Amino acid sequence: MSRRLKVSSAQLGPINLADSRASVVKRMIEMLKEADSRGSKFVVFPELALTTFFPRYWYDDPNEVEKYFENQMPSPETQPLFELARSKGIGFYLGYAERSEEGGKAHHFNTSILVGPDGRLVGKYRKVHLPGHDDHRPNVPYQHLEKKYFEVGNLGFNVWKMFKDDVRIGQCICNDRRWPETFRVMGLKGAEMVVLGYNTPSDNVYAPHEPPYLRVFHHMLSLQAAAYQNGIWVIATAKAGKEDGFWLHGGSAIVAPTGEVVAKGTTEQDEVISYDCDLALGEYIRNTTFNFAKHRRPEHYKLISERTGVEIDLAN
Amino acid sequence: MSRRLKVSSAQLGPINLADSRASVVKRMIEMLKEADSRGSKFVVFPELALTTFFPRYWYDDPNEVEKYFENQMPSPETQPLFELARSKGIGFYLGYAERSEEGGKAHHFNTSILVGPDGRLVGKYRKVHLPGHDDHRPNVPYQHLEKKYFEVGNLGFNVWKMFKDDVRIGQCICNDRRWPETFRVMGLKGAEMVVLGYNTPSDNVYAPHEPPYLRVFHHMLSLQAAAYQNGIWVIATAKAGKEDGFWLHGGSAIVAPTGEVVAKGTTEQDEVISYDCDLALGEYIRNTTFNFAKHRRPEHYKLISERTGVEIDLAN
Repeated sequence: MSRRLKVSSAQLGPINLADSRASVVKRMIEMLKEADSRGSKFVVFPELALTTFFPRYWYDDPNEVEKYFENQMPSPETQPLFELARSKGIGFYLGYAERSEEGGKAHHFNTSILVGPDGRLVGKYRKVHLPGHDDHRPNVPYQHLEKKYFEVGNLGFNVWKMFKDDVRIGQCICNDRRWPETFRVMGLKGAEMVVLGYNTPSDNVYAPHEPPYLRVFHHMLSLQAAAYQNGIWVIATAKAGKEDGFWLHGGSAIVAPTGEVVAKGTTEQDEVISYDCDLALGEYIRNTTFNFAKHRRPEHYKLISERTGVEIDLAN
Repeated sequence: MSRRLKVSSAQLGPINLADSRASVVKRMIEMLKEADSRGSKFVVFPELALTTFFPRYWYDDPNEVEKYFENQMPSPETQPLFELARSKGIGFYLGYAERSEEGGKAHHFNTSILVGPDGRLVGKYRKVHLPGHDDHRPNVPYQHLEKKYFEVGNLGFNVWKMFKDDVRIGQCICNDRRWPETFRVMGLKGAEMVVLGYNTPSDNVYAPHEPPYLRVFHHMLSLQAAAYQNGIWVIATAKAGKEDGFWLHGGSAIVAPTGEVVAKGTTEQDEVISYDCDLALGEYIRNTTFNFAKHRRPEHYKLISERTGVEIDLAN
């Protein structure tokens, strides 16, 4: 019997500062029910899915930021989501701000988890590619303080088996999707599918001259190249729309291992898109063009893991 | 004054077995004149530009294959091209099959060179990602014997400065373009532009079920992702059309650092496309989203240079 997985991407519309976690979880529950009604066994929620995208705000008092973080997961507010998913036999991906006590010290990560259809935690990921800055920039339209509020993830890029067919699933978060290194590491570990959530502003605050139409194009280009170049399914879910006036783009998508977009959101509201993924589809790509064992030449890739930034390094 | 470079991609239509090198060079000379008339200072010719794509043919006698290789470059047949380019002050990229004597032994590479507007050799590249196979497969419609006829390139991925503005230009060949590693290494060395030639069959002989429309899509997707993810210009030039009945796809393209295709061929014949590349366009990308020094995390990329093939490696 063919190995297939029915997946849904459950995009969230905006979450304003005034919105409670309970109200957000209620929306997620509605979407989980919708996904279930379509026969989905796996639902991908966004990055930082429980609150507004708070890294846009500067806080003088660091304690004020703590309110956006979860000290445990499931939390009291998300417990109903976990319970419903388990009762339906649905697994999911969920992004949230994680506060953890390790070595007697508080640590803060931009985190996602995979939860199995039995309700148990399968695996955790902490975002590696934190965009933005850590300095106060009061004169820009909004800030992007991920480098201030989060530590760089310390768990690496991993792949877990899930569901009855032991589907090999990797996870990452938002900006990670722009970096081919992210997907290549998971591809080398045997990923068949990579899932991610994102919060991405509709304009480029670092480059105000950049036409906004490039934003979703760059998002899709990154997903499609990652899918094709590793022969994997990619599911990406937005938090979208105007959060207290700050605009995040949609474009939630399910991308086949051929690089083709097979399902795509059309709104910037709560929206479920679904697809019945044939896990065999990527095999021919991984066995031919991207047969890594036959064609990769790591002796020529050393710089990728040895050098961080650009060094002008000319052969003449 | 802004740094700009007017480039042309000079796509070749088919070269049949019966076509002489002299006849091909004549066609290239016509295209170089056309590029010059448009004010181009840099012309990108295809991979293995002087002969038919011979790796599709099996030869029992290895000596028979030698006829496709060049023992020196410029060769007597290509000398007129080099001379015309120098007289016009035009630099170029040219792909050819290279036979070299090193250590008392003959070596064979799929090679490209950059030639400066003064006619001097700037730099040489030998193809790293050789596609295909080295075994005889008489029962397929055509073979792809690059792994038989060529050694893996031993010069790595490099970047050279060219033209009056010291434009930092890297080069690669055909299948290299599908591998993000190729462009990342050159990006880390400071490339502003990467140029390449290719010969790519219009169907996928390894996966006959693959719809042919995916072939040019995968080609373009790879170029566009490479351009965006490194903030570089990419110029890619096909040998296209039916060579003795074996069909190669076109799609020669000039891609901006935004990932946008700014010029694209529409034929599978000899065809020149041109664009005036603003070298500053990639700077904002390399300084923001893809500021490697700020955002890359090589400690999590080690597998890329340590592991060649997929090893199923699960975290649960």
